[in-house]
Amino acid sequence: MKAVLRERVARHVAALIEAGALRPGQRVLSVRELARQLSVSTATVVDAFSLLEARGLVEARARSGHYVRSEAPERPRAMRARLDSVPVSGDRMRGLFRSMRDRSIVPFGASSVSPGLLPTERLGHLAGLVARSSAAIGASYDPLPGVATLRAHVARRATRHGCATRPEDVIVTVGAIEAIGLCLRAVARAGDTVAVESPTYFGVLALLAELGLQAVEIPSDSADGMKLDALAIAFERHDLKACVAVPNFSNPCGARMPDDAKEKLASMLGQRRVALIETDVYGDLPHDDDRPRPVKAFDRDGWVMHCSSFSKTLAPGYRVGWVVPGRFYDRVEELKFVHTVASPTITQMAVAAFLDSGGYERHLRKLRRALSSQVGAVQDAVARYFPRGTRVSRPRGGFLLWIQLPDRCVSAIALQRAALERGISIAPGPMFSARGSFQRFLRLSCGHPWSEAAERAIETLGKLAGGDS
Amino acid sequence: MKAVLRERVARHVAALIEAGALRPGQRVLSVRELARQLSVSTATVVDAFSLLEARGLVEARARSGHYVRSEAPERPRAMRARLDSVPVSGDRMRGLFRSMRDRSIVPFGASSVSPGLLPTERLGHLAGLVARSSAAIGASYDPLPGVATLRAHVARRATRHGCATRPEDVIVTVGAIEAIGLCLRAVARAGDTVAVESPTYFGVLALLAELGLQAVEIPSDSADGMKLDALAIAFERHDLKACVAVPNFSNPCGARMPDDAKEKLASMLGQRRVALIETDVYGDLPHDDDRPRPVKAFDRDGWVMHCSSFSKTLAPGYRVGWVVPGRFYDRVEELKFVHTVASPTITQMAVAAFLDSGGYERHLRKLRRALSSQVGAVQDAVARYFPRGTRVSRPRGGFLLWIQLPDRCVSAIALQRAALERGISIAPGPMFSARGSFQRFLRLSCGHPWSEAAERAIETLGKLAGGDS
Repeated sequence: MKAVLRERVARHVAALIEAGALRPGQRVLSVRELARQLSVSTATVVDAFSLLEARGLVEARARSGHYVRSEAPERPRAMRARLDSVPVSGDRMRGLFRSMRDRSIVPFGASSVSPGLLPTERLGHLAGLVARSSAAIGASYDPLPGVATLRAHVARRATRHGCATRPEDVIVTVGAIEAIGLCLRAVARAGDTVAVESPTYFGVLALLAELGLQAVEIPSDSADGMKLDALAIAFERHDLKACVAVPNFSNPCGARMPDDAKEKLASMLGQRRVALIETDVYGDLPHDDDRPRPVKAFDRDGWVMHCSSFSKTLAPGYRVGWVVPGRFYDRVEELKFVHTVASPTITQMAVAAFLDSGGYERHLRKLRRALSSQVGAVQDAVARYFPRGTRVSRPRGGFLLWIQLPDRCVSAIALQRAALERGISIAPGPMFSARGSFQRFLRLSCGHPWSEAAERAIETLGKLAGGDS
Repeated sequence: MKAVLRERVARHVAALIEAGALRPGQRVLSVRELARQLSVSTATVVDAFSLLEARGLVEARARSGHYVRSEAPERPRAMRARLDSVPVSGDRMRGLFRSMRDRSIVPFGASSVSPGLLPTERLGHLAGLVARSSAAIGASYDPLPGVATLRAHVARRATRHGCATRPEDVIVTVGAIEAIGLCLRAVARAGDTVAVESPTYFGVLALLAELGLQAVEIPSDSADGMKLDALAIAFERHDLKACVAVPNFSNPCGARMPDDAKEKLASMLGQRRVALIETDVYGDLPHDDDRPRPVKAFDRDGWVMHCSSFSKTLAPGYRVGWVVPGRFYDRVEELKFVHTVASPTITQMAVAAFLDSGGYERHLRKLRRALSSQVGAVQDAVARYFPRGTRVSRPRGGFLLWIQLPDRCVSAIALQRAALERGISIAPGPMFSARGSFQRFLRLSCGHPWSEAAERAIETLGKLAGGDS
């Protein structure tokens, strides 16, 4: 509880700095004033200032309080725009996947949340009830496009997030990844070109490789996401068939695209009659409980295909995802039938029962607190142990950190290899680029509770990154 | 029980005729002799003879007993070999799928077994136990390649059917259809050509269309399956990347390929270093309890990719399938990860628990009896109500009938349309061909218990087929 409060205070101040309300060199409110304003103890504020110091955001000046550092720690750089179209090679992904999947003691590699943070017991109980409640469950192919009660919940939540959605707009899939694959198939054929964020989720790149698609990498910033001016130029140069993005707390760099950019993106694509394949699996995990709208909320004519799942918030092993494919509904439904016929019934019904029970929002609030504090802890440890000059993203949601090492450091691939030998998994930067950029970047997944072992692992990574072995 | 016995006697005699042990014109044993030999009542034998008469296999001659008809009813004709390579159009499939999926009162369309014949209550109970037994289930992505206990059961059963298989040879999939899709992707790219049976399961054709593959249709006979001499010629003419087949109780024509042909097929493909994608979802459903070996049993060097599922025998809605991909293991495992990451855990564990409990063999024996009797009932009704000259397959397993109408009849597409208006679904022949052959063929699925309504439906179909409306 204490850690949660401390983190909340730290984030409050960080947000003021972020927004420019507090400028470099300016004095931050005193401990006492802040404690009063936020209704917390002064001890909590003192703790929060230590965090902010560790994160390099403020510095203490003797007898006069805390000041915003004139050199705030820098975010990882976005890549230089090249905007040529490149084939995506499955080969690079291949080796990287294998090492990602290795069992490791300290799991900073895969983007998954610790089972301890998920309501698995309650879900299991509900799955049990569901499985026994009706003999007919599972006895026939689930009628497309999925279990009706689940689709109703998904539609209701989407509508609450600004996307007017009816249950009949939703198609249930085997996780978000099947949804993305179906969308890509619906709008592009082998040899076609699509725009992707750079860096982008490697699962998308692996799909592009399998489908024989070319990628144009659009530079994306770890604060605001895809650079739309670069996307506009890419449209001039290429016959793009789709744009693939994770606008809310992107993977790997954690960006949250601002609403005005989302609106612009939706209109750019609508005007050009090109699909946006939007993935929103992290959208339910804002650290400040301010659930961002998806780009789908700004979609006028159905050009946004919205993909998501419960894999990051409830149960990855249930494999319950969905897509709201807009104007491509018929084609996606058909493709779902051709590729996997239907999704399993029990898991859909168990998730629907969980949503029925009304505990999802409460669970999300708890989960967000935990993830926010875990992300903060990893940020702090990286600030302490990684080589000077290391840049770290400052995501406001999700649980992924994107880290840029200074040029003098070892390559991320070498770091990954050395780390694995010590039982630590990470995701190296080149996995997130079609052309293998981001040689000195890495993604750390902070889905697991902070621990002494985690701290030692970050220390080890820091040393290895600096070239100590 | 009485119906089961009658059917068993009828099949015994039919098998003797089939095998040539009883020749056209020859007298069948007397009612009394047969009753004694098979330890059944004479009334049962009399009933069985009525069935055999209805099926056109025997004829009664006044005061001298039953004789094998000199003109045994003919099986549907195999198509003429053309062996050119044709692109597979998704368009034709599309419209047909939609009508197939329409809710109908009398379901002769989809290849699925009546829920009442499946152990869904027991499975649901086990799924409930499994879901509650361990909080961890579903809390993480199921580790590839699937739940270990399920893979062990699959391997043990495969080994019993002549395919030496280790658990680590098995990858769990979302039904057999995902398995077939992964296999096709592993061995062929857009523009490549593969050999398929003709007629072949439309799901395979839909996948070929989606993947941009060309098909060479190899004529297949409703008794012995794919004609291997035609396949040999196709190999001379085309650079085939794979051969796709359902050697045990094929869909739609119900053929069971003899063992010597299976051995030859395995060796033809091994010599040419080309993959056989074998689907065996009906293999567990021989009417005579004689479980045929898959072609995989004759595979020496891993060129056979064996796909199957529990969708026809346990629970289609659980979506538990698998593939034993032989020498393509690594590639298929990777593709599974890229396309759906993993399969849901609970359903795999529930099926494994069912297999643990040892009731699967007993369930299969019961299911085979039911399907055999349902197939027989539909055959009889077709013989009674369909236009003279109609040919019907005589499958020895599974639950599908392949029917050829005389040339004077309406087209199967027209028949499908008219039947749907009357609440009856069927699968028209052109669905089973890349080039839309089999215009006057249809598939009737006999997965549902025989009933008065079913009989009336067959009568209606017969009238519609003859042009009455």
